Amino acid sequence: MTQNIYDNPEFFAGYSQLGRSIDGLDGAAEWPALRAMLPAMDGVKVVDLGCGFGWFCRWARQHGAAHVLGLDVSENMLTRARSATLDPAIDYAIADLERFDLPAASFGLAYSSLALHYVEDLDRLLGTVHRALVTGGRLVFSIEHPVYTAPSNPGWETDAEGGKRWPIDGYLVEGPRRTDWFTKGVIKQHRTIAHYLNALLRHGFAILHVEEWGPTDAQIAARPVLADERERPPFLLVSAQRTD
Amino acid sequence: MTQNIYDNPEFFAGYSQLGRSIDGLDGAAEWPALRAMLPAMDGVKVVDLGCGFGWFCRWARQHGAAHVLGLDVSENMLTRARSATLDPAIDYAIADLERFDLPAASFGLAYSSLALHYVEDLDRLLGTVHRALVTGGRLVFSIEHPVYTAPSNPGWETDAEGGKRWPIDGYLVEGPRRTDWFTKGVIKQHRTIAHYLNALLRHGFAILHVEEWGPTDAQIAARPVLADERERPPFLLVSAQRTD
Repeated sequence: MTQNIYDNPEFFAGYSQLGRSIDGLDGAAEWPALRAMLPAMDGVKVVDLGCGFGWFCRWARQHGAAHVLGLDVSENMLTRARSATLDPAIDYAIADLERFDLPAASFGLAYSSLALHYVEDLDRLLGTVHRALVTGGRLVFSIEHPVYTAPSNPGWETDAEGGKRWPIDGYLVEGPRRTDWFTKGVIKQHRTIAHYLNALLRHGFAILHVEEWGPTDAQIAARPVLADERERPPFLLVSAQRTD
Repeated sequence: MTQNIYDNPEFFAGYSQLGRSIDGLDGAAEWPALRAMLPAMDGVKVVDLGCGFGWFCRWARQHGAAHVLGLDVSENMLTRARSATLDPAIDYAIADLERFDLPAASFGLAYSSLALHYVEDLDRLLGTVHRALVTGGRLVFSIEHPVYTAPSNPGWETDAEGGKRWPIDGYLVEGPRRTDWFTKGVIKQHRTIAHYLNALLRHGFAILHVEEWGPTDAQIAARPVLADERERPPFLLVSAQRTD
């Protein structure tokens, strides 16, 4: 199964201090771009793959979703998600994204924020999601961008003029990357952009929109440190549709 | 108009010595991957955007294309292309890819090898190509990969363990990049992968396949220097289809 780093106490303590953990969707700089890729929520049944603290599940209900199923591998996160709502139209369930199942043709939207780059068996997941969507249903997800996950030793360097540069290596060598993030040995699965897109196409999705996310001018004005993220995109956002 | 670097004598002399100039398609390491993305040529009318010496135009005819129109901005290249064939079903024409026109619904395949990253007005070109394709017709093209074109000072660096790394900066800052390649001041247009894909989608293309090209094991065994290209992809290959 996927490494369950979110139930590592050191990791969980660190992750819980992130803006996106404390302020929810509004604490995630890429959220406005991801939100713009979502279909109308009215009456839609939604599944959230890697729902974490449940911020998106609650947002979807507030915006008209008929029902939301939040799946996550982390007991810690689901405990907090459950404690944050009494909404009977939100269900949370422990699920390993390597092995979960969903009822066929049941959802109008499958959503996933920064979870799929932890999943080893992407093909199985996409097959499961495709079957679970109604015809015309959408899969909208974000992942860490492959130029972010590729390097064997990820990090900025400074060039002779003081500019930030992000050295990449091994971009075409797919597989696990072990990094330190809040704790040692966090394992992510590096795959190319083409891998994600071709896997979607092979499973019968049409690609609707692709975004290599970077901050807007307004976001940089408010938080100047975000400017570095224009040197190399931190996130990849994809919208796809079941067409058959 | 696009900088016509191919009619710069110094550039043309250097470019003419490349494997792909001397040996044609078989001298281009990415050709097998691009060829695998092509539809059957039998009876198809083809337009080649940036046909250069005409290698692909002749290949398409040898593989059954009904007619091939080769367009290029370079008089030097078309002169050589014309001298290489007497085939009456190949026509070559001077064309600036910023301003050319094509007859509507006339081609089954639009092909372009390593030309579109010189074109400033990609939107106009994609509109022209979309109109020129029959319904179901394909656009198959290669460009320099955006991680290759992004850097302000492109080049390899060597890390502490002797590994090759490719530092990127300005990935999300689209626009011209001035580099030295055979001559000084070759201007390429850096655009993100997402920019290309979303422009295709906006013009009514469906994405069929995307490849971030790297060498096969057999290619590396035959030419070990190609191994570096796995650290960061040099080429992006895309297949798209007019569906309306």
